[in-house]
Amino acid sequence: MRGEFEQIRKVWAPLAAGAPGAYDLRNDAAVVRPPPGEELVVTLDTLVEGIHFLADDPPELLARKLLRVNLSDIASMGGRALGYLLSTAWSSRIDDAWVEAFAAGLAADQAEFSVHLLGGDTVRTPGPLTLSLTAFGSVAQGRGLTRAGAAPGDLLYVSGCIGDGAMGLLCRRGELRSLSLQEQDYLEQAYRLPQPRMALGQALLGLASACLDVSDGLLADVSHLAKESGLRATIEAPKVPLSTATASAVAADPEMFALALSGGDDYELAFASPPSHQGHIEALSQHLGLPLTCIGHFSDGDGLVVLDREGEPLELGGRGWVHF
Amino acid sequence: MRGEFEQIRKVWAPLAAGAPGAYDLRNDAAVVRPPPGEELVVTLDTLVEGIHFLADDPPELLARKLLRVNLSDIASMGGRALGYLLSTAWSSRIDDAWVEAFAAGLAADQAEFSVHLLGGDTVRTPGPLTLSLTAFGSVAQGRGLTRAGAAPGDLLYVSGCIGDGAMGLLCRRGELRSLSLQEQDYLEQAYRLPQPRMALGQALLGLASACLDVSDGLLADVSHLAKESGLRATIEAPKVPLSTATASAVAADPEMFALALSGGDDYELAFASPPSHQGHIEALSQHLGLPLTCIGHFSDGDGLVVLDREGEPLELGGRGWVHF
Repeated sequence: MRGEFEQIRKVWAPLAAGAPGAYDLRNDAAVVRPPPGEELVVTLDTLVEGIHFLADDPPELLARKLLRVNLSDIASMGGRALGYLLSTAWSSRIDDAWVEAFAAGLAADQAEFSVHLLGGDTVRTPGPLTLSLTAFGSVAQGRGLTRAGAAPGDLLYVSGCIGDGAMGLLCRRGELRSLSLQEQDYLEQAYRLPQPRMALGQALLGLASACLDVSDGLLADVSHLAKESGLRATIEAPKVPLSTATASAVAADPEMFALALSGGDDYELAFASPPSHQGHIEALSQHLGLPLTCIGHFSDGDGLVVLDREGEPLELGGRGWVHF
Repeated sequence: MRGEFEQIRKVWAPLAAGAPGAYDLRNDAAVVRPPPGEELVVTLDTLVEGIHFLADDPPELLARKLLRVNLSDIASMGGRALGYLLSTAWSSRIDDAWVEAFAAGLAADQAEFSVHLLGGDTVRTPGPLTLSLTAFGSVAQGRGLTRAGAAPGDLLYVSGCIGDGAMGLLCRRGELRSLSLQEQDYLEQAYRLPQPRMALGQALLGLASACLDVSDGLLADVSHLAKESGLRATIEAPKVPLSTATASAVAADPEMFALALSGGDDYELAFASPPSHQGHIEALSQHLGLPLTCIGHFSDGDGLVVLDREGEPLELGGRGWVHF
């Protein structure tokens, strides 16, 4: 493998071209300039081989997922993406070709999301490949969305479909063979290459009263919204939007519904919005070509209530799992 | 070991108290507000057990070093520190007591450097303990110091003493037994707990034309200043300031001088400044109680020349080592 300095020059510096504050990665630190009137939104995620991904995951997709899960956190605050720092601890199996493929994945997503590499650190490890990414975004001062802020009576929405991440991981493990190959491909792709909802997040400034991205699982994450807002959240389970593929998996095995609601890795946005904005949310959904589904509401109280088709509460376990 | 959420609540949230943008670590992302007229300076360093530190290094000191090496990068741009994000991948040997000691080290340095934890990610690893820290600082817009900017005729300065980091590592390994225990303690402490030169960095805005921190070794780092400024740097080796302890090590083994100049981990600032500022630099040194020593100059040309006591060039190897 190339030495550190050569790797920086050949592989990483091209990813920093176009970001003046990155100084072509030749400085001790980088400069990030939020646009006038905006403040920085910062987040960090770490992925470890064997824990968060598998050794044979394609490096291009791994790179893109690492960037996207961080961008999703920026989106959940209503921020727009600016750039990122990258920490890579290479294990002994990683060679130059692997690093180049990883960088190619980043390059593809840099173009898609208009961000640049700003700096980072490259080291070696005797352990598993360990990747950490710090993403920067910006949002109008004091206007960033948080998990707190939902009011009693606010409606609860989610974007896109829920459960594809969890089903995709099962496909990845070869545990959903009953589905068609096309469905398996769709789900595995959803797991491997989530879509951070950047445009939605920014459009929700002024429309949403609270927001987060669904990374821990819908039930756990809606519980977070309820707790941080000091309210009770109610989810009407039959309203939760499922893709055709996830619906197939649930049809084949009804227990998969609990997994769809509690598994993570969806990276959709869950948000609260007052009923008066219902029309705006519908128009926004049309405009973005992205389903925004009302799946429940917030009320005085605490905790999370999940209702079944008959309006009866489903019993919830401690870690967000639905026990039927 | 505590679960992730309990660890966040008990260990990490107290380190975020006092930073409004950290939302008590209960949000997807944090907000960083640079003071009016300032922009963000960002940097990241990653430490892996067995590569950058040893398993029996005290967690308090390890935490402080991790923070300090990043703050040193902020200082080298003339920035003031604002806060940081932390990525921790815990190996199987790490228990709650270890994590608490690590957090206590961070708490101590948070107080010393007026920074707060803003967020991060906590995961487990089957490999070695891996720590990554992203530090944020701020500097007046467009005024941050970089490695480029030295002019022909500028003088080359370093703060403090050079070589203590490299000698300290040798002490740590028990390889400098000829020194007194007091000297060994002093050097090991210098290695374990570097002093980021925050006040100096900020005071150099307007005085220095280029600056970096000495982390790769004085010779390599001055070469960086020369290269990025498009100049030749000349170091007069006898002028390089050594601590009494490092001078003792050199007296006992003259080859240690090469190691002092080429070893890393000093975290002093090396900077260029026009001769017209000489009086200001001397006054600043007095004011800070910190030696600022002129050890050479910049001129047209390229590369690094190191002169011995007789003004004869010493031959340099490719990786910054002096070969006598």
